[in-house]
Amino acid sequence: MMEMENFKHFLVALCAAGAVGLVSIIFVLRWVLHYKEGLGWDGGLAEFNWHPVLIVTGFVFLQGMAIIVYRLPWTWRCSKLTMKFIHAGLNLLAFICAVISMVAVFDFHNAAKIPNMYSLHSWLGLIAVTLYCLQLVLGVGMYLIPITPVSWRAAFMPLHVYSGLLLFSSVIAVALMGITEKLIFGLSNPKYKDSPPEAIFVNVLGVLLVVFGALILWIATRASWKRPNDQILHSLHTNVGGEDNTKVGPAMSQLSDAADDEAFGDVRRRSNKPDDQAN
Amino acid sequence: MMEMENFKHFLVALCAAGAVGLVSIIFVLRWVLHYKEGLGWDGGLAEFNWHPVLIVTGFVFLQGMAIIVYRLPWTWRCSKLTMKFIHAGLNLLAFICAVISMVAVFDFHNAAKIPNMYSLHSWLGLIAVTLYCLQLVLGVGMYLIPITPVSWRAAFMPLHVYSGLLLFSSVIAVALMGITEKLIFGLSNPKYKDSPPEAIFVNVLGVLLVVFGALILWIATRASWKRPNDQILHSLHTNVGGEDNTKVGPAMSQLSDAADDEAFGDVRRRSNKPDDQAN
Repeated sequence: MMEMENFKHFLVALCAAGAVGLVSIIFVLRWVLHYKEGLGWDGGLAEFNWHPVLIVTGFVFLQGMAIIVYRLPWTWRCSKLTMKFIHAGLNLLAFICAVISMVAVFDFHNAAKIPNMYSLHSWLGLIAVTLYCLQLVLGVGMYLIPITPVSWRAAFMPLHVYSGLLLFSSVIAVALMGITEKLIFGLSNPKYKDSPPEAIFVNVLGVLLVVFGALILWIATRASWKRPNDQILHSLHTNVGGEDNTKVGPAMSQLSDAADDEAFGDVRRRSNKPDDQAN
Repeated sequence: MMEMENFKHFLVALCAAGAVGLVSIIFVLRWVLHYKEGLGWDGGLAEFNWHPVLIVTGFVFLQGMAIIVYRLPWTWRCSKLTMKFIHAGLNLLAFICAVISMVAVFDFHNAAKIPNMYSLHSWLGLIAVTLYCLQLVLGVGMYLIPITPVSWRAAFMPLHVYSGLLLFSSVIAVALMGITEKLIFGLSNPKYKDSPPEAIFVNVLGVLLVVFGALILWIATRASWKRPNDQILHSLHTNVGGEDNTKVGPAMSQLSDAADDEAFGDVRRRSNKPDDQAN
């Protein structure tokens, strides 16, 4: 399906994303367990520490994996419906992590009498979680409920993809603002500006999150790394009726072919070609 | 060239981006002139204030305009070479703003004996400016120097587009971190957490920057809003030799046609269609 050379490039990018993502998780765990107060659920700083841990592991790493799950060539034999459930499931898990991580902060603030929702970080974070929830609900309504018309699915897809990548990027930006806040408020004697080891260590975590985001966005936006056309056609059959390809009548086949032409008739043609105007 | 309905959508997005961008510039000016110490070049806070002003007007707004300059339908009659010079010129201007804005911060830090380059904001900001400079040099070398082979231009284009959009997004993320730092360090009695008017005002500026970025990314990534294919073909002639279409010999025509097929043969076909797999 994918050329060998192209597949190698994909594998390198995928392994890099996985490695940088996992190292980020190790970094955030070491931050709270080694430099900070550890983890707990007591309304104190140990409860607050769930906030960065759940954001990095859930809202950043799991969301990143959810975005590129359709790109894994060894899943192209699975039905599209299965992959949609995995995509939605990972995003749901990421959303749950984000919600719990916000509860941890509100609990901590309320116990310590610190105001809630005053910072730009908190504003943009709440907007991101709200829009992420909306994206999840609309995505399930559009692509997992069998009765949604194929024409709606096709028309909504560019917005779904754009919103998904924008939300992912925004979540990383909000995480970087959170790291900045925490290093300023959490470090005293030596302060952040005196660059103690914790400051350097967590700055590196911030850089890792940006590299992880850049790799996920690269993988997600390469046209030649997309799930191929013929399997899309197949899965359109199986998803609309939940039936095997061979059982689909001629009318259904025509519907699928028409939808295929309309929405992604040029995917195969486009494969392995630069995706912008190159002069 | 563009359908009327599609053109209206483009105009709405463009006007929204322009409006939000200009309001952001007004906000950052009001921030430093009304709430802060104004502008000056004295090594003090008035010099520091050039930093947010030049970043918002130059590194965010001008860079955003540079990104979408090819999308303006009324420029499609201009030669591609002219548009490339405008694109490169705006990016160069944005880069100069970024460099001056960094000089202002270093001057201020040195005069006030504040360490340089300790924060995640400064790390990511310096990385962004450095990579932006590299992108500018490589872009000029690839697309404005006439001898660069067409095959190189085509092969490098996906990376040029990806890097450009990633750098633009990163610059906004770094600006949000800068706003966070400045509100924490710059507000005392009432502090940031007490939400004085300045804090609310500048938080709104942060939200505006995100909306501006989202609009520019939307405009830049709609396939049907790209400069059409036939004019690309024309400009390839004019750029390679700097000559009029009619003066180009048959060999050159063939080269251009081949490059056109290779690099963006499906642009016209793809127009007005959803740009992802929609089932």
